Amino acid sequence: MRQVAVIGIGQTKIDEHWDKSLRELAGDAALAALKDSGLERVEAVYVGNMMSGSANHQQHLGAYLADWIGMRGAEAIRTEAACSSGAASFRSAVMAVASGLVDSALAVGVEKMTDSPLNEITAALATAADAEWEAGNGLSFVSLNALLMKRYMYEYGWEKEHFAPFAVNAHANAMHNPYARFHEPVTVEGYLKAPMITDPINLMDASPTGDGAAAALVVPLEKLHQTNGRKVIRVAASSAATDTMAVHHRKDALFLKAAYNAATKAYAQSSLTPQDIDLFELHDAFSIMATLSLEANGFAEKGKGPQLALDGEILTNGRIPIATRGGLKARGHPVGATGMYQIVEVVEQLRGEAAGTQVENARIGMTQNIGGSGSNIISHIFAVTD
Amino acid sequence: MRQVAVIGIGQTKIDEHWDKSLRELAGDAALAALKDSGLERVEAVYVGNMMSGSANHQQHLGAYLADWIGMRGAEAIRTEAACSSGAASFRSAVMAVASGLVDSALAVGVEKMTDSPLNEITAALATAADAEWEAGNGLSFVSLNALLMKRYMYEYGWEKEHFAPFAVNAHANAMHNPYARFHEPVTVEGYLKAPMITDPINLMDASPTGDGAAAALVVPLEKLHQTNGRKVIRVAASSAATDTMAVHHRKDALFLKAAYNAATKAYAQSSLTPQDIDLFELHDAFSIMATLSLEANGFAEKGKGPQLALDGEILTNGRIPIATRGGLKARGHPVGATGMYQIVEVVEQLRGEAAGTQVENARIGMTQNIGGSGSNIISHIFAVTD
Repeated sequence: MRQVAVIGIGQTKIDEHWDKSLRELAGDAALAALKDSGLERVEAVYVGNMMSGSANHQQHLGAYLADWIGMRGAEAIRTEAACSSGAASFRSAVMAVASGLVDSALAVGVEKMTDSPLNEITAALATAADAEWEAGNGLSFVSLNALLMKRYMYEYGWEKEHFAPFAVNAHANAMHNPYARFHEPVTVEGYLKAPMITDPINLMDASPTGDGAAAALVVPLEKLHQTNGRKVIRVAASSAATDTMAVHHRKDALFLKAAYNAATKAYAQSSLTPQDIDLFELHDAFSIMATLSLEANGFAEKGKGPQLALDGEILTNGRIPIATRGGLKARGHPVGATGMYQIVEVVEQLRGEAAGTQVENARIGMTQNIGGSGSNIISHIFAVTD
Repeated sequence: MRQVAVIGIGQTKIDEHWDKSLRELAGDAALAALKDSGLERVEAVYVGNMMSGSANHQQHLGAYLADWIGMRGAEAIRTEAACSSGAASFRSAVMAVASGLVDSALAVGVEKMTDSPLNEITAALATAADAEWEAGNGLSFVSLNALLMKRYMYEYGWEKEHFAPFAVNAHANAMHNPYARFHEPVTVEGYLKAPMITDPINLMDASPTGDGAAAALVVPLEKLHQTNGRKVIRVAASSAATDTMAVHHRKDALFLKAAYNAATKAYAQSSLTPQDIDLFELHDAFSIMATLSLEANGFAEKGKGPQLALDGEILTNGRIPIATRGGLKARGHPVGATGMYQIVEVVEQLRGEAAGTQVENARIGMTQNIGGSGSNIISHIFAVTD
């Protein structure tokens, strides 16, 4: 198997981009990654997207984007795995290059959600849950996560205020990220006073949607053409796993089994342990997901996720920095693009380009993108090459 | 790069499956392929599907199907490339196994189209065209193909009746395929009398939609566990290419450039030429697409596609048999599943299991799945191993 390296990244600000079409948004990130890489052409394009079929009346985003960015002829498909669609496009790019069938691949995550009425977006998001057993009975993603959070608080004795550090940290970091949706700090008091959505999840537990695109370009490590003088970032591990589609089918709903399995595979592939990871861009779609993800990945014991946050260990100078560029909570969560933002941000950190929230001496970074309520997990570990 | 082999296939009849849910339909094909392979588990599942988000209010089909068929834990994503979504899932499976990251992968194509009103299905199909420049101006897929057919007839002097052999051959072959949607022979007279849809495309030029699922299981050729006594079929080539999204952007709309490029790559990968191909499962969504595909793949000169059909060379005992199990025209075209049906049918032929329409001594078969109006092409060549 060929080793794979990231040599280009690009992203757009997450916002309400009413002045840009879907193709312009995706194209901006894709072309930025191309420019950053120094390459002029790629052989393959993988587009991670969840809901353009309903939100933008446009599918077939592979050919659509390849055409728009001047890569006519390149092979191109869309990957969809609900909110983990972005990382799915990256894993497809990694596999394509690793297989030897392709020598350069561009992974692009894009979602344009603000053109449609909110009720349609909520319905589109619900297609990531089980239509017959969850969505059809009225469960939205907020309510699914509210059930998890409520049970977690009951089982482990945490109070609402103990989850505040997740939002506080994310919003503080986003202040330094020009691509983040929000540049507004949040205090513990502000967190506690935020409007309730579905008890116990309030507005500061939930990540905002939005329009955004992020991209990364990969090539075989053995065939590095040029890298514009930047550090080469190696894909040290790429793994994925699924869990039951419906949450009620799990023996223990408070253990993200697929996250644990994907992480275990990633650690094995890279011969690394959680202790070796310098930063972790996790899927903090809700505070409870950040908590469960930290636990499933080996950074906190079961039921102890909030303690890590309360101890300040998730800050950029803590033991395991998370949401270093704002995370889903404050950078924003354009669903099919999120996984690619996570990857772009880890590459920024490992290159030393994360101005304002740079993790010192970061050499190994991890991402974890979650689809559905933990039903699809895609993990990556990246390392600086010397 | 590891060589890849197909060791299991499965399919459902294409029909109006009102008695089956989306997961049951996909599961039936997937489990049939597993049983056929002799394996009990796979590491990865790739689901090709175009429109379940709108037609079935369900996305995230990777985790959804893996869960349903008892492959909880396996990594799983959906691939979408409009009508070439099925072959995209197979190519993803091939890349995963070729890369060494995965040792067994199941590719499943599924589409359940008959639960929704026809106007919604037409709208969903149109998301494969360019929303801003084609669909938004009222162009459906039938009208796009009608424009191509009309121009083709004008440029090369063919009459309507010269396209009859495509429908006649497809329907004759489907008579022997228990999984085909239609088991009704068509005559030249019947073809000419069929109701017009969009001049010059009549009902016998167009393929029917429907509900269906097909699946294939691939493993590394070097790690064949067991094959239930059946011939092992090697993936001799896997390739893909795109063209402009909108037809009007092409210099020559009557030349499927992406099909030519994908075929050229496939021939190079396998060190084969069109002369070596024993049968070709092509994408006869419309008679004109069959014509253009035969030309782009090197089986007929430009403008001469209908002659091949008129000469009987597309019959199972002809020079290049096509639609040997009914093709899109008579087996049916459940869009996201079609590419997998083509692959399953070529494997049937190479195994010698195509009762009634067996191509004698078939040792090398080719498939070509087309997304949009030729904007996304995925080609495969399969060979019997000795």
